Amino acid sequence: MKVGLAAYGSTKFSTDDKPVESFLLEATKELFNNSKNLVQNDIDVVLVSTNDNSKYLAPVLSELSGIKPRISHTVESLCNSGTNTIVSAYSYLASGLAKTALVVGADRFDSPGQILSWDDSRGEFKHPIFWASIFTKSYKRQYNVSEEELAHVSVKNHNFAQANPFAYSKKHYTVNDVLESKELTEDLKLLDCSRPCSGGSAILLSTEDMISKFTDCPVWITGVGQKNTSASFTSNSSFVRMDSTKIAADMAYRMACVSPNNIDVAEVHDAFTVCEPLALEGLELAEDGKGAQFSKYLLETSDRKINPRGGIIGSGHPLGATGISQAIEITEQLQCKAGKRQVDQPRIGLVHNMSAAATSSTVLVLQN
Amino acid sequence: MKVGLAAYGSTKFSTDDKPVESFLLEATKELFNNSKNLVQNDIDVVLVSTNDNSKYLAPVLSELSGIKPRISHTVESLCNSGTNTIVSAYSYLASGLAKTALVVGADRFDSPGQILSWDDSRGEFKHPIFWASIFTKSYKRQYNVSEEELAHVSVKNHNFAQANPFAYSKKHYTVNDVLESKELTEDLKLLDCSRPCSGGSAILLSTEDMISKFTDCPVWITGVGQKNTSASFTSNSSFVRMDSTKIAADMAYRMACVSPNNIDVAEVHDAFTVCEPLALEGLELAEDGKGAQFSKYLLETSDRKINPRGGIIGSGHPLGATGISQAIEITEQLQCKAGKRQVDQPRIGLVHNMSAAATSSTVLVLQN
Repeated sequence: MKVGLAAYGSTKFSTDDKPVESFLLEATKELFNNSKNLVQNDIDVVLVSTNDNSKYLAPVLSELSGIKPRISHTVESLCNSGTNTIVSAYSYLASGLAKTALVVGADRFDSPGQILSWDDSRGEFKHPIFWASIFTKSYKRQYNVSEEELAHVSVKNHNFAQANPFAYSKKHYTVNDVLESKELTEDLKLLDCSRPCSGGSAILLSTEDMISKFTDCPVWITGVGQKNTSASFTSNSSFVRMDSTKIAADMAYRMACVSPNNIDVAEVHDAFTVCEPLALEGLELAEDGKGAQFSKYLLETSDRKINPRGGIIGSGHPLGATGISQAIEITEQLQCKAGKRQVDQPRIGLVHNMSAAATSSTVLVLQN
Repeated sequence: MKVGLAAYGSTKFSTDDKPVESFLLEATKELFNNSKNLVQNDIDVVLVSTNDNSKYLAPVLSELSGIKPRISHTVESLCNSGTNTIVSAYSYLASGLAKTALVVGADRFDSPGQILSWDDSRGEFKHPIFWASIFTKSYKRQYNVSEEELAHVSVKNHNFAQANPFAYSKKHYTVNDVLESKELTEDLKLLDCSRPCSGGSAILLSTEDMISKFTDCPVWITGVGQKNTSASFTSNSSFVRMDSTKIAADMAYRMACVSPNNIDVAEVHDAFTVCEPLALEGLELAEDGKGAQFSKYLLETSDRKINPRGGIIGSGHPLGATGISQAIEITEQLQCKAGKRQVDQPRIGLVHNMSAAATSSTVLVLQN
C-alpha cells in the first residue's frame, strides 16, 4: 500500500516560553486550516515527536484537537525524533493497521534533549558543540578545508532562511560575520551552530486509497532508510564520515529505485556547519571532501537545491519538530508550492535527519 | 506477513534503586539467554517502552547490547506504553520495513509517569487513586457490588503471583487483610492498588519467514485493537464502563476472527481491584456487573484463566514494562511453558493494557 504526505502545518520557530502542548496544538490547527476536507474522524493515528518530559502528549493533543484516534503515543530519539515518528506512522499505514496518521512534533528552547547526558565518559564535554568541534577539526585536517570555506554553509543557510516565514533567524550574514562571531571552541563559532528554539510542526500521512480526500497533489514516501550505529560519538569509526547516514541513504535509494544524482532537492541535517558537507558526502550528493565547495557554489548561484528553507542553522532547531519541518519543506517543493524558495520543478526530494553526531540517521525519498 | 513472538526475558520486579538502563539491559540479556540462535545482527529494530525522562534510550540499550539496529526509538503512552510499543514493532514488521524487532520496557519505582500531571482541572487529585475511587464508588453503586466482593480480585491476584518468580508481591492475603489494609480514600484500601516498582521486560517479534530461527513454538499476533477516547478521565462517558477497552476489543476480535468465548487465558489491566471486573466486562469476558463474581469464582476454583501471573496487583507495575510482561505471560501460557501457572492447553490468549482510567486501551489476541 503506497503511503503519501497530504497536509502540513507549522508554528513560527521562536524563543516563546509557552508549554510544549501549545506548539503541538498550534501546528495541528494550521494543518487542519491548510488541508481540504480533513475532519477529526478521519484520523486513525496521532503520534507526537518530542524530547519534552511531559507524558501522554499524544492523547492530550488528541483531546485538545477533538480527535479520538485508535493509536496514540510519543516517539523520542533525540534530534531525529521527527523522522522516526514519520517512519513509524508510515509503517502503521503500510501494514494495513490504519489509513491516516497525524504526526506532530514540538520542543521548547530549553528542551532536555539538548545535552547528551548518558555518556559519562565525556566528563564535562556533553554538549553537542564538543562532538561538532572534533568533526570540524578532523574534517578540515583530512581534506584541507579552511574555516572560510565551511563558513559559507552558515552564510547560505542563514541567507536562504530569509524566505522561510517560520525561520528563527531573521538576518543575513557574511562570511566575516561568521568568522567573527563568538568563539565557542577552537573550531566552532556561534554562527556555525543551529540554535535551540521553540516550535512545532505537523504532517498528515494517508494511504493511496484515501489520500485524494485530503489533497490534489500527494507526495509519496518511496524510500525509507534508517541506521543506528551507536549511542556514543566516540564509537564512530571515523570523524570525517557519517556511517549511519551512508547506510540509511543506500537503503532509501534502493527502496525507491533512485540514485543520488536523481535527487532534485534535499533537506539535510546541518546541526553545525561541518554537518552539511558531511551529510552531502554520506548521501553521495557530493564527493568526499567536496561538500563545502558544493555548498559555496549553491550560495554563489542562489541554487536552493540543498536546504532551501535554510536548513537547521537558518530555521532553528526545536528538536522534535525538526525532521517534520524538513519533510514539510520537501513536500512543498515537490508540490511546487514553496513560493520564493521554490526549486525548478523538482520530481524527487530527500530528507536527511540525524541524532547525536550521526550515531543514528534517517533518510526519506519523497516523490510527487 | 504474519508476525509472531519468539523470545522473552524479564528482571524481577522490586524496589531496586538502579538506573533504568540497568533494567533494560538485564531484561535484554535474559531474552538472549532464553532464545535459540539469536545473535545481535538478527535485530533490525530496537524499541524502548518507558516513562523515564532519560533520552536516546533505544540507541543506548543497543550499544550496551552490541546491536546496531536500523530503527531505534522510545515509545511512551503512560501505563500502556508496553503494548503500544509491541504494536509499533508489529507494524514495522507487517509493513515489510523490517524482519525482527526487540521490544524492551522498563521503569523505576519513582517513574515520572505515575502522576497525571497534565490535568490541572483535578486540582490536587492528580494521583490515579482518585479516578480509581470514583470508578469504585460508581461501580459498587451501579451494580450493588460490595467491598468484600471486590476484595476477592486483590486476594486472587496476590495469591496467583506467588507462582510468578518475577512478582513484586511475596505474600498471600485474605479478604480481611484487604479490607483492613490502610485506607487511602473512602473507597480504596492499600491492597486494592497495584504498586509502582522497578523492573524490565523484553520480547522479540519476528516475521513468519524468519521466526523459526529463534523458536520452535512461535505465538502469533492475530488481533490488534487500540483506542484512545480522551486524556482526562472526566471525559469518559461513564465511570462504570471502559469504552476504549470495548472498542479495542471489538477491533482485535474482528481482526483475529475470534469471539470472547474463544479466549482461553487473558492478562487484563488490574491497576486497581475495580479495574479487573471493568476490564472483563469491556472485553465481554463477563456480563456487565458480574466481573467481580467471576474473579471470585476463579479464586475459589484456583482457575488461572484471568491474570495467571498475578496481574498488575500481584506482579507490580513498572509502567513501561507492564504491557510487555503481560504479553510474555500469555506467550508462555500458549507455549505451555508457564509451569505452576499453566492453564490447561490454551489455544487463544488475550492481553489488555490501558492508561489513565482507560482513556486509552490496547487489546492483543495471541494464538499458537
